[in-house]
Amino acid sequence: MKIGVLGTGIVGQTIGSKLSTLGHEVRMGARQANNEKAVTWTKSAGARASQGTFADAAGLGEVVFNCTSGTAALDVLNAAGQEALRGKILVDVSNPLDFSKGFPPSLFTGNTDSLGEQIQRAFPATKVVKALNTVNAMVMVDPARVGRGEHDIFMCGNDAEAKARVGEILRGWFGWKNVVDLGDISAARAVESYLPLWLRLMGALGTADFNVHIVR
Amino acid sequence: MKIGVLGTGIVGQTIGSKLSTLGHEVRMGARQANNEKAVTWTKSAGARASQGTFADAAGLGEVVFNCTSGTAALDVLNAAGQEALRGKILVDVSNPLDFSKGFPPSLFTGNTDSLGEQIQRAFPATKVVKALNTVNAMVMVDPARVGRGEHDIFMCGNDAEAKARVGEILRGWFGWKNVVDLGDISAARAVESYLPLWLRLMGALGTADFNVHIVR
Repeated sequence: MKIGVLGTGIVGQTIGSKLSTLGHEVRMGARQANNEKAVTWTKSAGARASQGTFADAAGLGEVVFNCTSGTAALDVLNAAGQEALRGKILVDVSNPLDFSKGFPPSLFTGNTDSLGEQIQRAFPATKVVKALNTVNAMVMVDPARVGRGEHDIFMCGNDAEAKARVGEILRGWFGWKNVVDLGDISAARAVESYLPLWLRLMGALGTADFNVHIVR
Repeated sequence: MKIGVLGTGIVGQTIGSKLSTLGHEVRMGARQANNEKAVTWTKSAGARASQGTFADAAGLGEVVFNCTSGTAALDVLNAAGQEALRGKILVDVSNPLDFSKGFPPSLFTGNTDSLGEQIQRAFPATKVVKALNTVNAMVMVDPARVGRGEHDIFMCGNDAEAKARVGEILRGWFGWKNVVDLGDISAARAVESYLPLWLRLMGALGTADFNVHIVR
């Protein structure tokens, strides 16, 4: 499959490399087509990897991953453009973290809105599925690295078919055993509001290599 | 031990009954000393159970549990009074849920403050330990009812000795296997911000009988 990855940081590189390893055609998008990190990544990520502008990456992808920082997300998606994203599944991995007052960050969306909803409102013709934002990059693409894979990943979005597809990607490509559908995109408030707890847990545990497992 | 329980709802009744069953002297506090729910609870909760005003309950307790709704918490604690709470451990179980705009509720504290911090600021001579607010009442006092007890409860607060004591209560009296200390009372933002996810999970799972287990 053709995949666009927006963002050149650790999340974009990790997801891009995983998809590339699986044989997909992955294009990493950045503000400049010759972004140094994207060029370096492309050289290491196999024959079907490429880089370009945000619009190039979104235009190629049948599915697009938003792996930008939360503060950059809407700018980046606007740079990619409505047309490049029209009708496509956008997996939104970003978190609305405001580091302007230091650590731990707060959420710049408050708690009656979310970045996932802001993106869906700004791109009504795109099928936004919020997913993967509750774990660190390594766990996203290799859940078995913690707790023998016995833990849970959340997704939400307004389009049932898009969520079914993302569920297949999470299970089939990334190896997630438990994918919990939390409902429509307004549930992005829930998974984004979890970040303050994730950050405190990282501090208490001394590692970012963890996740939560829902037990009943 | 002598325990004060503030609040007559399901959380106060469940915690009060558990402590009473364990042989502790428990006084349930309400706005009126003859509160009907408190009187009824007292009749069923054994010879060492009693009811009274918020001040009566806080005054008796060596440890006090705040089991009120979030919107009532500060009013109730003010009714209990600074003197009755001075030097004591206050286990704050409340959540800052705002149901005024329907379900799911938002957090009336925003995400740069928390109810736990508001309480600690208002009662500087009281040792506030936020705990238990991330599970439903039945799980609070009987963690083994879900996932064979293999899951986690969080606490935070500024006083290390108070947290050690609350940790003993959670482990020894309530049966928690894993008590995670998230740091000072500002971590109340983290555990309170988890509530929107808890509420969505309750919807997705169709039960309130669940919890999260941290896996590494």
